[in-house]
Amino acid sequence: MANPTAAMLVIGDEILSGRTRDANMHHLAGRLTETGIDLKEVRVVADDAPAIVAALRVLSGSFDHVFTSGGIGPTHDDITADCVAQAFGAAIDVREDARALLAAHYDRQGMEFNAARMRMARIPEGATLIDNPVSVAPGFTLGNVHVMAGVPSVFTAMVESVLPKLTGGEPLLSQTIRITRGEGDIAEPLGLLAREYTTLTFGSYPFQKDGRYGANIVIRGTEQDKLFAACARLLELFGDDAA
Amino acid sequence: MANPTAAMLVIGDEILSGRTRDANMHHLAGRLTETGIDLKEVRVVADDAPAIVAALRVLSGSFDHVFTSGGIGPTHDDITADCVAQAFGAAIDVREDARALLAAHYDRQGMEFNAARMRMARIPEGATLIDNPVSVAPGFTLGNVHVMAGVPSVFTAMVESVLPKLTGGEPLLSQTIRITRGEGDIAEPLGLLAREYTTLTFGSYPFQKDGRYGANIVIRGTEQDKLFAACARLLELFGDDAA
Repeated sequence: MANPTAAMLVIGDEILSGRTRDANMHHLAGRLTETGIDLKEVRVVADDAPAIVAALRVLSGSFDHVFTSGGIGPTHDDITADCVAQAFGAAIDVREDARALLAAHYDRQGMEFNAARMRMARIPEGATLIDNPVSVAPGFTLGNVHVMAGVPSVFTAMVESVLPKLTGGEPLLSQTIRITRGEGDIAEPLGLLAREYTTLTFGSYPFQKDGRYGANIVIRGTEQDKLFAACARLLELFGDDAA
Repeated sequence: MANPTAAMLVIGDEILSGRTRDANMHHLAGRLTETGIDLKEVRVVADDAPAIVAALRVLSGSFDHVFTSGGIGPTHDDITADCVAQAFGAAIDVREDARALLAAHYDRQGMEFNAARMRMARIPEGATLIDNPVSVAPGFTLGNVHVMAGVPSVFTAMVESVLPKLTGGEPLLSQTIRITRGEGDIAEPLGLLAREYTTLTFGSYPFQKDGRYGANIVIRGTEQDKLFAACARLLELFGDDAA
């Protein structure tokens, strides 16, 4: 059976302006691969309601899961929860369990639980909360969309709250063979191998080091026996130039 | 007049599997901001022809420019040029000027110019070549799509070959004010300021350091006078907590 599929939607002007280098995509990609969920597409859009709503509708209709990152804080540019409600035609309001979590948190911190902070308790109707062990304000799952914070430490923690609840497939395994030949010399035998092992994928990532050309060949698949057989063939084909 | 708009399409299984952390998005985002071209969306798709062709069609129809990264090497998984040809209904074949560049390069290197390497001279009809000062194999521009390599050093060099040929708008300026108050205390006055200065955008990026809460407020816009006026207001509002 094929693995479940996923998309990620990164929400944030700061990524598109080049101010911030996104870290969440790389983290989620690695964790999904380990879980046996195939990440098929990532989109990055601005803090712009029509763009967010349109992307949510397309991605949630095309993949088994959608993971979002960003836009769930207390400020005016945090519009993700409202956009998710709009995309699914769900009502949205302050929810009592989320409000209580935040009220207790700000009470412990001796900080005022004001109107801006109350916005973080706005949760679309029918959603399940996602635990936030770092800074309390919860994420949520509505339908197949998992809404998480953009701050990397919080995003990472929320991913670990969500993943155990999802049914993964077979983890995608990978092996890397380093070949110190020009990629153009590797291409033909590699292409033949890729046509022979149709359930594996073969990626070629060239490098140049100390004046020598080479490529890392990454072989991926869920069947360990085929993976090792293909690695053995590649090592045999390139002899001393492969490792 | 509004700035030109752009999208980026990152092509590569290695990003979606979490093996490689993409660097090109962050680089391009920063350079476009400096050039006065507004990056509105980024998509990352796998080495999968239907996904690449569909994304190319949507993005090239929606934005003034599309910049692609990845999939133009000599191996079987390098399918970007063929996908661009397909998306635009253009013919594709080995082109003499690209072939000559590569032939001279491999001759200098004492490497065989074989069939796999010849694939890198396949250019869609009607395209303009993009210079590659790093490793010779060219990128190309077809219509409003700029096709570049995924290897970061080559991508970076190709961006510098392309950008001087494009008409930019007014560079997006930004200023950051660091406020050591909880984001929930900043939210209301910041929201009022955002409604007052409608041509500027105000982003709030929270942090926690040495047990204190704070946020970096990033104000962006093309009018320097308004930018400084808004910064002055923010500094006044938060007194000793702002810097």
